[in-house]
Amino acid sequence: MKASLYFHKTQKEKPKEAVSVSHQLLLKGGFVEQVSSGIFSYLPLGLLVLKKIENVIRQELEKEGVLEILMPVVHPARLWRESGRYDEVGPELLRAKGREEDFVLAMTHEEIITDLVKKSTISYDDLPFVLNQFQTKFRDEPRPRGGLLRLKEFIMQDAYSFDKDEKGLSLNYEKIGRAYERIFKWFLLPVLRVAASSGIMGGSKSEEFMFLNKSGEDVVVWCEKCHFKANLECATGRVKEPEKVRDFFQKKEIKTPRMITVSQLSNFLKMSPTQIIKTLVFKKKDGLVLVLIRGDREINEAKLNQVMGENIELADEEDFRKHNLVPGFVGPQDIKNIPIYADNSLKSEIKYVTGANKEDYHLAGVRLSDVDIKKWVDVSVAKEGDKCENCGGKLEFKPAIELGHLFKLGTKYSEKMRAHFTDKDGKRKPIMMGCFGIGLDRTMAAIIENQNDENGIIWPKSVTPFLVYFMNIANTDRAIKVADKVYEQLKEKNIEVFYDDRNKTAGFKFAEADLMGCPYRLTLSRRSISKDCLELKKRDEEKVELIKIDRVGALWKNF
Amino acid sequence: MKASLYFHKTQKEKPKEAVSVSHQLLLKGGFVEQVSSGIFSYLPLGLLVLKKIENVIRQELEKEGVLEILMPVVHPARLWRESGRYDEVGPELLRAKGREEDFVLAMTHEEIITDLVKKSTISYDDLPFVLNQFQTKFRDEPRPRGGLLRLKEFIMQDAYSFDKDEKGLSLNYEKIGRAYERIFKWFLLPVLRVAASSGIMGGSKSEEFMFLNKSGEDVVVWCEKCHFKANLECATGRVKEPEKVRDFFQKKEIKTPRMITVSQLSNFLKMSPTQIIKTLVFKKKDGLVLVLIRGDREINEAKLNQVMGENIELADEEDFRKHNLVPGFVGPQDIKNIPIYADNSLKSEIKYVTGANKEDYHLAGVRLSDVDIKKWVDVSVAKEGDKCENCGGKLEFKPAIELGHLFKLGTKYSEKMRAHFTDKDGKRKPIMMGCFGIGLDRTMAAIIENQNDENGIIWPKSVTPFLVYFMNIANTDRAIKVADKVYEQLKEKNIEVFYDDRNKTAGFKFAEADLMGCPYRLTLSRRSISKDCLELKKRDEEKVELIKIDRVGALWKNF
Repeated sequence: MKASLYFHKTQKEKPKEAVSVSHQLLLKGGFVEQVSSGIFSYLPLGLLVLKKIENVIRQELEKEGVLEILMPVVHPARLWRESGRYDEVGPELLRAKGREEDFVLAMTHEEIITDLVKKSTISYDDLPFVLNQFQTKFRDEPRPRGGLLRLKEFIMQDAYSFDKDEKGLSLNYEKIGRAYERIFKWFLLPVLRVAASSGIMGGSKSEEFMFLNKSGEDVVVWCEKCHFKANLECATGRVKEPEKVRDFFQKKEIKTPRMITVSQLSNFLKMSPTQIIKTLVFKKKDGLVLVLIRGDREINEAKLNQVMGENIELADEEDFRKHNLVPGFVGPQDIKNIPIYADNSLKSEIKYVTGANKEDYHLAGVRLSDVDIKKWVDVSVAKEGDKCENCGGKLEFKPAIELGHLFKLGTKYSEKMRAHFTDKDGKRKPIMMGCFGIGLDRTMAAIIENQNDENGIIWPKSVTPFLVYFMNIANTDRAIKVADKVYEQLKEKNIEVFYDDRNKTAGFKFAEADLMGCPYRLTLSRRSISKDCLELKKRDEEKVELIKIDRVGALWKNF
Repeated sequence: MKASLYFHKTQKEKPKEAVSVSHQLLLKGGFVEQVSSGIFSYLPLGLLVLKKIENVIRQELEKEGVLEILMPVVHPARLWRESGRYDEVGPELLRAKGREEDFVLAMTHEEIITDLVKKSTISYDDLPFVLNQFQTKFRDEPRPRGGLLRLKEFIMQDAYSFDKDEKGLSLNYEKIGRAYERIFKWFLLPVLRVAASSGIMGGSKSEEFMFLNKSGEDVVVWCEKCHFKANLECATGRVKEPEKVRDFFQKKEIKTPRMITVSQLSNFLKMSPTQIIKTLVFKKKDGLVLVLIRGDREINEAKLNQVMGENIELADEEDFRKHNLVPGFVGPQDIKNIPIYADNSLKSEIKYVTGANKEDYHLAGVRLSDVDIKKWVDVSVAKEGDKCENCGGKLEFKPAIELGHLFKLGTKYSEKMRAHFTDKDGKRKPIMMGCFGIGLDRTMAAIIENQNDENGIIWPKSVTPFLVYFMNIANTDRAIKVADKVYEQLKEKNIEVFYDDRNKTAGFKFAEADLMGCPYRLTLSRRSISKDCLELKKRDEEKVELIKIDRVGALWKNF
């Protein structure tokens, strides 16, 4: 491709709006352009990279026998009502009123694929199979940011597996997991495979492929001793025992005027928050629940939703009034008709302080063995200082970018939407499903976060827009003729070459080449042409090598 | 690809819901599956064809130096307000309320591309360039039908050209037009390039690529004598002179009780409708207009909107009341303060009958030379019997499928959205734009409408899912071994082969092969294996040829 015929505009200045390195370099290098909050267009250079990412993924999935299909972006709301997610999912799901029916925009495609497979009459000998697609999705994110790191409109590879039983599902799950590991190797991205929460997808098991990076919005928790790894969303830590425990010989009410937060109370009573019970009131579909957690811990919503089997919310004033609960002073003792869940952080046998269910009073000396706990649960956010639940080792916490996700959906969708197969015994059974996705845009951003220097991107060969950035900086009549010939020679050999034939200075062209980030730079200079040579430099090395012009066609035989 | 590992379900029965041949064969052959009205999924086979169609188009456009980009499916409503189309376009444009802003779903991408180019600082030496994309669009069609022929969600190739001036625009327009002609040749689709209406796109010139077919919803009008060709939406016919004209010596009112349609009136008065003036009242943004047309003609809305420069509607009861107009009996005489447009069909110098502006009365003997006509216009639908305006030849009318569209947009978008370039003289000028699109789904349907027989599709080589349908119908142990080897041999030569290795009857496999429609069928039978041969048959020929098994790898050298 000749630069003079290309639509390609770089920016000299660092774009003000861009905080993350990948966002800056994508804009500066002319790879993408922002349309609106969380919505981008891919310019020619950016699309070349996107297509290569897509092709790497496609190839590795094809090796596993995965077949490609294409499902729509706009879904009838009817199918999302059938699965229950129309009501479960919040405003991230974009809803629109159509002429004939209501629509939603695809966030994921479980409903569509389940309906698709259900319409084919599936029998046991059709199973297993895995269907994949690359398709646009939309999620009306509240805080899109970081350029391609968190988008509203994004492109995903999403594959869906169909099996007779749990064993088949596990085989497909592992097969795709291995394909994903190969895929991230192509991108030179070191990823961690960590336990994850299934979130709105549901299902029994799920793992994420995480790239540790300071621009990440997720947090990976891992134990260096036993190699336990998990997303903070579902990580479990063994909490330290309560510190500086004060003893109370018997239960007593303490006047605590307007002390409604743990930190107010802890300061006022000069007690460690680890000896205080935080009592939270949540609203489920079938009524209220109390959740108790140690004063120094936070509730992990994902875990809590998982435990409750639905997305629950904090109770409102009305709920408090109806149940005679005193906001700020709720405690578990003497509570009737509201089930009580206690977080494992409270498993110590000490006497706690908790709300007295009376305005401006707390109760000290409460033992949880005296409280009617419905269930002990793990619903707290793991935090620095926690020990590994498996081995007691130290837990590490690092920011990370989620690039891929594996889910065992089981029969969640096939049961609700009646996608059955006929088994050998003639019986109709729900199909076992899995689903597996990689975010393409975000992967592009992660590749850049992983490989760059102060001058621009350093693309891996597998996804570079061009293999070679070739420039003529001699700019004599003879040099132009020679350069044109070199360009033709490279094209003949099917080497992807960007030929900077513009009438610009050497300094300009060198800067452009670094910004574009191709693995090789090839330069025709006055010095090199006098020796019938070209200067060859790798993007990530300083060394410049002289190579004979007539050897240029043979240089990249192996690509 | 082995059939036993493929996700592929054919239907024996003709699908009830499918009227057009392409719709039937796409469903029967397992190429697509319907999700909802006007929304389909592509199954593995269908996606293979879609991708090939995309690649043919991409290759031919790349030959013209066109660069590929990718713009979003979800657009901020803000940009559509800027161009004015948010209000101009009806309910086909799907609108949705987002968290941060309002959205529309892409019907086309003029707004986005104009904004994209505007953000790059364009100077005269950046021009010309053409940017292309393949992207999903959505149009909430009132009557989706014919399978892939008229969809709500569809995939388009849409290219946009950018030029300094009208001359540059014409060059790009012709370049893309030639590429489109080559593209439809690859698909073996005979297309007509016809004059078209610009519709909601606006601009000065537009042509369509039409495939004549009874399933088409458009009508092409052409003159066999001078080769004039146009979409009925914008075709002009020279009307026959009025017939059996009755004379009226002077104007006179005739009592015509409840005769409010032309046919009622014509029967009642025993007069030809060609001597009756139909007077229609429309509402523009700035007030009412009267449109006069000959009684035997219909208004062409596209032409009328073009003439009026906006999308106008029929006046309602309220408008009639306000202006003292009598529904059913409006006529042009004595009308004050309402501009009158007359269709060219009324250009005869005869005396007409028209509404008397009085309940139950018409007026006879009206000459239009006595009426204050603001403008003579062409707003009638051409019809059978009209003569060619250019040469007087006979006009033909045929149903057709619109596959591609070329538009000269001019500066409509660049002016409204301030997309300027800096010219040599240092002045900022609006960029000249063109846009060019092919509907991919509909093209697939058209290819099928064009090439099929009672057993299935006959794919052109350029888009077939597989080149060869290979089957083993001998099914002895030896035959299975030989067949597996043949399959390996073909794969090694990179021949796209579908290997029907299922344990099914010969009859079943032959039917499946015809339904899939690959250009070649290769069969290993008991008879052929005894001669070390395979049976080769072309999809569109009856002849079966015996070829030596060891020659099979060399058979399709040229693909």
